Amino acid sequence: MRRVVAAMIIPASHVDLLDSKALANVATIGPDGAPQNNPVWFGWDGTYVLFSQTTGRQKYRNLQADPHVALAIVDAANPYRYLEIRGVVAEIVDDEGNAFIDSMAQKYIDQPQYPWHQPGDHRVIVKVLPGATTQMG
Amino acid sequence: MRRVVAAMIIPASHVDLLDSKALANVATIGPDGAPQNNPVWFGWDGTYVLFSQTTGRQKYRNLQADPHVALAIVDAANPYRYLEIRGVVAEIVDDEGNAFIDSMAQKYIDQPQYPWHQPGDHRVIVKVLPGATTQMG
Repeated sequence: MRRVVAAMIIPASHVDLLDSKALANVATIGPDGAPQNNPVWFGWDGTYVLFSQTTGRQKYRNLQADPHVALAIVDAANPYRYLEIRGVVAEIVDDEGNAFIDSMAQKYIDQPQYPWHQPGDHRVIVKVLPGATTQMG
Repeated sequence: MRRVVAAMIIPASHVDLLDSKALANVATIGPDGAPQNNPVWFGWDGTYVLFSQTTGRQKYRNLQADPHVALAIVDAANPYRYLEIRGVVAEIVDDEGNAFIDSMAQKYIDQPQYPWHQPGDHRVIVKVLPGATTQMG
């Protein structure tokens, strides 16, 4: 039996943000121990926060070295409402057939296929297990 | 003579974001070594990125322990355009007479005085010296 507990960490007052088209600002720890931070498309499957990454990117290397992340998701309709999720990358899996990045293109830009795929890009899905949250608004 | 060099680090293509009303998502390192991340109002004086903090907050304690920060500033008009600033807190100074937080209220909510001041709050100004940037769009 698979028990889903991560969703319980997300406050009911802010869970709507996980189904919104807001971006997630993803903070990771760089090779020098300092934070790095940039916005990404994300998905939510009820257990994990998911985002796409190519294996050539610094963020991918950061997560191999230190799986801790903090996601700041600001309500696009109200900048004084946000959800921060602190968690750990539970696993990184191949994005078979680029199905996940295509689903993100559908969500965010209403296109069935991700239009900026580069030859040689190896897409993976980063699965973040929420550990704690902070929120405002 | 005061020599200002930090501004040179900011790419001309994205310096407008520092004068915009976008929020800065500020990533810091928490006491457990994991990142923390949340949006704040910010200012830019041509050398430092400035944000307000009360001394009772976790972020203030984080910065005392580790001054590294990464700011993600997303263009409010175009989510595919952003500036990341990685830097170090050069100094934290008292916000005399709450002049800085009041200037942020003027910038962001067009009010001359910050309306959510709490008795006993001790406001400081965190001054981040940019060290490197990444950007998109």
